[in-house]
Amino acid sequence: MIYKVVETLDKTFGFERAKAHCDVPCGIFDPISAQIAALTVVRMIDLMNDLGAGQQDLASQNSLSRYVAVKEEHAEKAKHEVRVIWGDYIKPNHLEEYPELHGLTHQIMQLGSKCRQTVDRETAVEFVAAINQFAEIFWKTKGVATKRAKAPYAPALELVYPDL
Amino acid sequence: MIYKVVETLDKTFGFERAKAHCDVPCGIFDPISAQIAALTVVRMIDLMNDLGAGQQDLASQNSLSRYVAVKEEHAEKAKHEVRVIWGDYIKPNHLEEYPELHGLTHQIMQLGSKCRQTVDRETAVEFVAAINQFAEIFWKTKGVATKRAKAPYAPALELVYPDL
Amino acid sequence: MIYKVVETLDKTFGFERAKAHCDVPCGIFDPISAQIAALTVVRMIDLMNDLGAGQQDLASQNSLSRYVAVKEEHAEKAKHEVRVIWGDYIKPNHLEEYPELHGLTHQIMQLGSKCRQTVDRETAVEFVAAINQFAEIFWKTKGVATKRAKAPYAPALELVYPDL
Amino acid sequence: MIYKVVETLDKTFGFERAKAHCDVPCGIFDPISAQIAALTVVRMIDLMNDLGAGQQDLASQNSLSRYVAVKEEHAEKAKHEVRVIWGDYIKPNHLEEYPELHGLTHQIMQLGSKCRQTVDRETAVEFVAAINQFAEIFWKTKGVATKRAKAPYAPALELVYPDL
Amino acid sequence: MIYKVVETLDKTFGFERAKAHCDVPCGIFDPISAQIAALTVVRMIDLMNDLGAGQQDLASQNSLSRYVAVKEEHAEKAKHEVRVIWGDYIKPNHLEEYPELHGLTHQIMQLGSKCRQTVDRETAVEFVAAINQFAEIFWKTKGVATKRAKAPYAPALELVYPDL
Amino acid sequence: MIYKVVETLDKTFGFERAKAHCDVPCGIFDPISAQIAALTVVRMIDLMNDLGAGQQDLASQNSLSRYVAVKEEHAEKAKHEVRVIWGDYIKPNHLEEYPELHGLTHQIMQLGSKCRQTVDRETAVEFVAAINQFAEIFWKTKGVATKRAKAPYAPALELVYPDL
Repeated sequence: MIYKVVETLDKTFGFERAKAHCDVPCGIFDPISAQIAALTVVRMIDLMNDLGAGQQDLASQNSLSRYVAVKEEHAEKAKHEVRVIWGDYIKPNHLEEYPELHGLTHQIMQLGSKCRQTVDRETAVEFVAAINQFAEIFWKTKGVATKRAKAPYAPALELVYPDL
Repeated sequence: MIYKVVETLDKTFGFERAKAHCDVPCGIFDPISAQIAALTVVRMIDLMNDLGAGQQDLASQNSLSRYVAVKEEHAEKAKHEVRVIWGDYIKPNHLEEYPELHGLTHQIMQLGSKCRQTVDRETAVEFVAAINQFAEIFWKTKGVATKRAKAPYAPALELVYPDL
Repeated sequence: MIYKVVETLDKTFGFERAKAHCDVPCGIFDPISAQIAALTVVRMIDLMNDLGAGQQDLASQNSLSRYVAVKEEHAEKAKHEVRVIWGDYIKPNHLEEYPELHGLTHQIMQLGSKCRQTVDRETAVEFVAAINQFAEIFWKTKGVATKRAKAPYAPALELVYPDL
Repeated sequence: MIYKVVETLDKTFGFERAKAHCDVPCGIFDPISAQIAALTVVRMIDLMNDLGAGQQDLASQNSLSRYVAVKEEHAEKAKHEVRVIWGDYIKPNHLEEYPELHGLTHQIMQLGSKCRQTVDRETAVEFVAAINQFAEIFWKTKGVATKRAKAPYAPALELVYPDL
Repeated sequence: MIYKVVETLDKTFGFERAKAHCDVPCGIFDPISAQIAALTVVRMIDLMNDLGAGQQDLASQNSLSRYVAVKEEHAEKAKHEVRVIWGDYIKPNHLEEYPELHGLTHQIMQLGSKCRQTVDRETAVEFVAAINQFAEIFWKTKGVATKRAKAPYAPALELVYPDL
Repeated sequence: MIYKVVETLDKTFGFERAKAHCDVPCGIFDPISAQIAALTVVRMIDLMNDLGAGQQDLASQNSLSRYVAVKEEHAEKAKHEVRVIWGDYIKPNHLEEYPELHGLTHQIMQLGSKCRQTVDRETAVEFVAAINQFAEIFWKTKGVATKRAKAPYAPALELVYPDL
């Protein structure tokens, strides 16, 4: 049914099956913002663990509150940035070539929710991994080669970068 | 490959295949916000057409600027609200029952972009229709019957409502 | 003195004493957003009570922080949405017919503040009730009949709905 | 009926009829933000008139767009700041002493809307005047004397200041 | 090297070395927003200390969370408002006359960060003092005399005001 | 006087003269967001020039409005991201090593303002260049080598990248 919906709307509205181009707003789509945001989620969990549970003094309560708030903000930011690329940039021809895109994007949203609801580092690391996978596909659609390298800040997890 | 990704992550993270439940934040998911926002997009286009092109006076320029800005804001709001329900609420068991969900959600994003980039009323009306379709599926997943009725404000297009 | 202020400004600026119409931005005024936001406030208090006090582990601290933040956000959202309808939509002729509107709107603001400052469920339920009362008056000004029904999500409190 | 609603809720929730005190969040209520925002609305209209209508070049279109956007932002900001003081700070005892407060606040909202919808300088100047009147009452409730002085920036309209 | 960079860009882009004038958006620059925001930071720390550490009940946890959030919001607001005046309003001729401006602005940013990261009242009071110093220089560049007076709300610290 | 202010505050608050470390919130400082935002400003000007002046139809007016709005948003975003790195991350020891930082940061703010106020492509390209210069210094403070490469999207200007 997906194909049928796509086909009908394509006919009605003439979606361009051209190569990936920039929406207007151009957006200059780049997954790096989502990748950095996801990394920040891991970082916050590390800071929360460093602080430890049960600290009763005001300064510790202040810090814990802030880590949670930043984790919230960046998990949501990562989800939003991915949705913008998936929703605005990815066109039907990309979906034909990479049919896993919908499922992967949905998984990223689910992982992002879980990152917000828990302080589970593994979930956050999977979040970064899934977004890296998404970034890899994105650069492929643009015909840009990629490489993997450790991010130059803690936590120094591997990120997918365009090989420029 | 979608199924494979889903399966693996399910095993690792234990995604609940339970009935639809509220994420925490509960969110109290309701597509009405997205539906009203999409209706506003149509309304703005109608106001832009009422104003007409080529009005040079400051008051008209002021109005036109505002209509474009509101159209922008509400098209994005509709996209965001749909993404929240799709990304946070929709679980693998829903996707099994309604496999068209990913494609439909992606089409909503594409239509939303087109609504922003143009002043095409037909596209905006299709935007409302696609979100209505999404709303229908949403209420089905919650076991709530729906009905269609004209919205009680201009443009009085039909919206899907839960039959309470 | 209210009447005097209204009369003078009416003469100067020609406020339309016509039937309720949409401001531009059309806004498509609908109290449902405020009602859902107030319901979310009650929901957060319920979640906070479910969690219980004195949980020292990081996961619980994370959840509590998030519930408070969402309660903040939705109490403010409800206040804002009500203010927009009262301030932008309600005209002098409505105030003549429903002179309780100013006092009711002010009470809603006061209740919203109290909802933010406390975790008192009764206050939050009164907040929902006051906004329902506001919604009822709103639909009357538009000549739309209303009905009451339990919201289709927890907490399933009664909301005022337009009978479409 | 206003009195009846107030009385009932007062009994139920024990609203403090104490002197004006700071809500928590303290908020440190001060109408100056609203006054400066309203002044900015007048300023934008002046800049729009300086630019003049019918300028077709991109630089002028760029400027006009920006003036409208800033006018929007500051008219809304002024409305919001006034609502916060009226809704969060003003208590029943203030309303007894200054019964014109509700009507004045509502008029400020109506003027703010009109400022957004038009490029009428007189309306914007009335907006500033109404907010000055509101500021005067606010400082009286705090037992702080006021004075009027020309604002130290264009447009140098008179603003009400606390006499410190 | 600063002078060299300034000189070159001045030649290329013709920065006006005129007296301080308003950017468009006019902005109607006024440091009072930054000053009030910094005062709010001190207020939140006072409220946190009043509450005390180790309160386990939900109502206290709710309050503490909110104080931290408001402290965050206002420390950032103060930093932003100062940056806008420094970055948009301050021109090379002001920097020649008050060469300490860059260092002072940077110190304000550093203090603001420290205010967010700690619950140290002394840091917050220094934050207010540094912004007062900034305000004093600002009014001098506009040729407006200043005076110091206790703010008319808690905490009643001294603020720099334009003497109108 | 800068040195004196710095010295005094250093003694009082014990600013760490350690190597660059992450503020908490960690922030994971990375200038790439500012660089991409500045690139978007150039892109918008190109799109505005492609559209051309004097287009009277609604679709063109809609596009022009949107380009201006996106230019506004991204010029401000670039300024903000640079301010965060300069204000939160850059410490006194960095300023000793790179005394041009204050002047460069201020120039970036001034260029950003000019980008908003005009549709001058040269200014926008200078904006990108200045932020590249800032990025280069940033990576030096972190001991990370850099390289220059054309951005993988239009406008394909050169950006400074960490050589990972």
